[in-house]
Amino acid sequence: MDRILLTSMNIGFVGLGNMGRGMARNLLRAGHQLTVYNRTRAKAEELIRDGASVAESPAEAAQNAEAVLTMLADDQAVEETVFGENGIASTLKQGAAHISNSTLSVGCARRLASEHQKRGQGYISAPVFGRPDAAENKKLLVIVAGSDDLVTKFHPVFEAIGRQTYAIGTEPWQANAVKISGNFMIATLIETFGEAFAMLRKAQVNHALFHEIITDLFGSPVYKNYGKLIVDEQFDPAGFALKLGFKDTRLALELAQEFNAPLPIASLLRDHYLDALAHGQEKLDWASLAKASARKAALE
Amino acid sequence: MDRILLTSMNIGFVGLGNMGRGMARNLLRAGHQLTVYNRTRAKAEELIRDGASVAESPAEAAQNAEAVLTMLADDQAVEETVFGENGIASTLKQGAAHISNSTLSVGCARRLASEHQKRGQGYISAPVFGRPDAAENKKLLVIVAGSDDLVTKFHPVFEAIGRQTYAIGTEPWQANAVKISGNFMIATLIETFGEAFAMLRKAQVNHALFHEIITDLFGSPVYKNYGKLIVDEQFDPAGFALKLGFKDTRLALELAQEFNAPLPIASLLRDHYLDALAHGQEKLDWASLAKASARKAALE
Amino acid sequence: MDRILLTSMNIGFVGLGNMGRGMARNLLRAGHQLTVYNRTRAKAEELIRDGASVAESPAEAAQNAEAVLTMLADDQAVEETVFGENGIASTLKQGAAHISNSTLSVGCARRLASEHQKRGQGYISAPVFGRPDAAENKKLLVIVAGSDDLVTKFHPVFEAIGRQTYAIGTEPWQANAVKISGNFMIATLIETFGEAFAMLRKAQVNHALFHEIITDLFGSPVYKNYGKLIVDEQFDPAGFALKLGFKDTRLALELAQEFNAPLPIASLLRDHYLDALAHGQEKLDWASLAKASARKAALE
Amino acid sequence: MDRILLTSMNIGFVGLGNMGRGMARNLLRAGHQLTVYNRTRAKAEELIRDGASVAESPAEAAQNAEAVLTMLADDQAVEETVFGENGIASTLKQGAAHISNSTLSVGCARRLASEHQKRGQGYISAPVFGRPDAAENKKLLVIVAGSDDLVTKFHPVFEAIGRQTYAIGTEPWQANAVKISGNFMIATLIETFGEAFAMLRKAQVNHALFHEIITDLFGSPVYKNYGKLIVDEQFDPAGFALKLGFKDTRLALELAQEFNAPLPIASLLRDHYLDALAHGQEKLDWASLAKASARKAALE
Repeated sequence: MDRILLTSMNIGFVGLGNMGRGMARNLLRAGHQLTVYNRTRAKAEELIRDGASVAESPAEAAQNAEAVLTMLADDQAVEETVFGENGIASTLKQGAAHISNSTLSVGCARRLASEHQKRGQGYISAPVFGRPDAAENKKLLVIVAGSDDLVTKFHPVFEAIGRQTYAIGTEPWQANAVKISGNFMIATLIETFGEAFAMLRKAQVNHALFHEIITDLFGSPVYKNYGKLIVDEQFDPAGFALKLGFKDTRLALELAQEFNAPLPIASLLRDHYLDALAHGQEKLDWASLAKASARKAALE
Repeated sequence: MDRILLTSMNIGFVGLGNMGRGMARNLLRAGHQLTVYNRTRAKAEELIRDGASVAESPAEAAQNAEAVLTMLADDQAVEETVFGENGIASTLKQGAAHISNSTLSVGCARRLASEHQKRGQGYISAPVFGRPDAAENKKLLVIVAGSDDLVTKFHPVFEAIGRQTYAIGTEPWQANAVKISGNFMIATLIETFGEAFAMLRKAQVNHALFHEIITDLFGSPVYKNYGKLIVDEQFDPAGFALKLGFKDTRLALELAQEFNAPLPIASLLRDHYLDALAHGQEKLDWASLAKASARKAALE
Repeated sequence: MDRILLTSMNIGFVGLGNMGRGMARNLLRAGHQLTVYNRTRAKAEELIRDGASVAESPAEAAQNAEAVLTMLADDQAVEETVFGENGIASTLKQGAAHISNSTLSVGCARRLASEHQKRGQGYISAPVFGRPDAAENKKLLVIVAGSDDLVTKFHPVFEAIGRQTYAIGTEPWQANAVKISGNFMIATLIETFGEAFAMLRKAQVNHALFHEIITDLFGSPVYKNYGKLIVDEQFDPAGFALKLGFKDTRLALELAQEFNAPLPIASLLRDHYLDALAHGQEKLDWASLAKASARKAALE
Repeated sequence: MDRILLTSMNIGFVGLGNMGRGMARNLLRAGHQLTVYNRTRAKAEELIRDGASVAESPAEAAQNAEAVLTMLADDQAVEETVFGENGIASTLKQGAAHISNSTLSVGCARRLASEHQKRGQGYISAPVFGRPDAAENKKLLVIVAGSDDLVTKFHPVFEAIGRQTYAIGTEPWQANAVKISGNFMIATLIETFGEAFAMLRKAQVNHALFHEIITDLFGSPVYKNYGKLIVDEQFDPAGFALKLGFKDTRLALELAQEFNAPLPIASLLRDHYLDALAHGQEKLDWASLAKASARKAALE
């Protein structure tokens, strides 16, 4: 009990989507005081039952908080929530911090860091790896970057939502660069399965058994799970929508551009995403990228 | 002891390289009678101490065998060993089988199957996944394809050399297609690390820590090991030489061509292999493919 | 004389770079009244001698004009010149038109069309193909898009600056799409030469003679000129800087993205541009893209 | 008349396809004595009327010839015709030469050179650029490589079939390298049109007018003709079949591989050819490569 008392904080939480709800619940379980905000209030109800308070705006969620976490779709959503009317920046106290868990561009992370600093507010980028069930079960990997003081101070928050915290640097955008690079690696895995499966199907080799072999070879749940989605062609409902995967590949290409580092597999992914979008797949799971390879082999 | 007596076979083994030695030793450990042949006899010495007999030619290794295994560099080496002067095909008994563990083209596998059949000899493709230490420690994955009768009969042989056997079909070339596709997936992983690391190094983000995060995220020893080779730039001596990796990518492209299934990542790999070869890397580990990405980002 | 009297117009011209100066001079030669503006006034001097008046701001260049032409570096430069302080939009008369000759994004062209329309001003996109000597010698191709009325009315202006006018549609952005696509085709030509020359040089085949053959085969001055720049490695000073070529490839990728049409050669160009930028080539001619292919073949 | 008498030679000609017939006719027109052979004799009839003799085998076509020309589909056809039963090599006189006009691999050219030399026979690679109408009208470009003596001696032969002769070197395979590289450049042009047209069609920009603009810009009949085939979707009957175009891209990739020079656009072309073949386009014109881009943009 002591530990909880010592580390209990007033925390705001904005964005109760599939990921955010699990993360918010784990903050409550860790003993923190939570004030939540979501654009559609209905999603906040179950958290109220778990002990959260509800705010009427991001500003209200932030006003008494030591830290306010945001888990939102993209750059634009975060910037509106922070700097728009009744935004977080308007009420967050000096010395308190905004912790962004979203997958953002490095440019957006830099703007957030700079704008919060002007207001005497702290900012940490803390994107997470994991799907909604990992969020619910405190299995996320939390990648954090920000000033050492802030990262140390809010360590209990990161520990509350994930199974492992990685501090990557003192510039917040560095955590975003890592998250973007990690999603690039997962997208490449999906593409690779798509290509190999299409070839084996054309050759009439058992691609489901190939998937089992690869799962054994790599020993990775990520390979197991994504491979299975593609073998089963189970793309709807999406765990992570293709249009979001496309966004992340574009973020990778932007990052590559900023630092003059070619990323040819990401270029190839982008073209396959456009093919997928041209064929109406934006709301399917990003694993459906594999359909582009199947089409090119005349399998669809 | 009973089990061993029941399944003990006379086995020939040709090709005592880094992989073959471990495999041969495990056949001895499983209680089989082994007659080995290697072009340079010195490599056979330690196996003699372990109980193997030594043959003076592939033909001699095959002549009393129920099965003769070959673990050689490429199509040409296997075809010479089987059909050349004093080759396996000249002495292998009717009803006995040639089991090829090498990574071969599907075309070569089809020629072997057809030629052995004309002579009343059996043929099984049984390529393996795993590096030399896995061969030594009986941790290989063994992918087998051939007639059901033969695959059943020689199951104890596969079990003796690997930790898991996968029977993929009745046409021997199907096992080669799976092996080629699996190596395509590993090569893609190497390339992906190469690109992501180059970008992160340009961005001055800690790419070694990124590697740890990815290892945690994917939970795969393959990611762990290859990523570490690249982070440490430890490419010499090669565990698997770049020129062999290049051969396997070409096999993947041939397979893609036979079945009219585009494989754009393999095309990209091929171009990066050519870049690597142009820069003298043929004897380095295939993980050194990552150096091409580093060069393009002006990191070398 | 009659013809000139009938079609003589009051024209503003903003942007007297290498291209703009020749275009402005040809408008004077055709008998139009010209008021020019350039950020650095020195470049206007020679046009004063040719009969032009000089304005102190874009607004002044536009205020009495029936049409104001802009020939500037990129979206941002045009938007500042039009909508910034003392910008064109602040003085351009109702019924008069802004004719943009720059290579702009289709998004920028749409914003210009919409904003001018709100003010009762006309807008035409009229990008041009040709290098500075073509601008000087009235050899440009002028691609125009806008309402039929406006395009008809200003036909004498297009005729004055180019050797051929192509009206591509009634939506201004369509002309920009054509210009972007055309530059994509030229950039591809450069890349193709880069790859073929690198291969032939490695093979010790006379690539300069190959260039002569290709010039003969295609019968195109574009092939002749760009091939020669690469054979001679004459990249400095730039006729068209690599960083501008990179911008145009990005515009092509944006266009591809908007309409969900994959453009894989443009993706590949982008990666080679990043390689070129990583190696410090931003101010060299865009033909120096060929150096990336040479580096990959270990020729540099 | 003097000139003809001085340079008139006994010439054999093997391969009277669409290209060969026109070339043979021009040799007759130039005053040479011609003995022709074709696998299906019917195609020789019209040449008999023009003054040619007919042979019953390649050997017979070669036996009294100073030079025998071959214009055949691929490596295999040429090697059979030269070294097979009743092949050219069996009768060609010492000091006489085989002139191969086919598009061959550099490896095949080297074998031909070496085998002919062993027999005291000369060998010249003399591939040509041009379609059947260019062959008929003596408009071909003839790329020749071989020993200076031979190239000088047979100059009148090259002049008889083409409008321009280019001597690229003393090693016969060098001419093949140039031909392969030239076809790579044409295939890239086709691909570029395919991509740009697909994008503009999605954007509802007039791609036929874009083609006119590009034709004007590049000033090249090659651009004009291929672009028109694609705009009109006129792919059947094939002027040059897609499966032959695919062969030439593979030759380019082989060449790139031999000299360790990456050729990423050729890799991309190869993948698009596989897509085209998967969709049954092998007998359509190679300009139909553009259909792959249209499919990816969901236009088909």
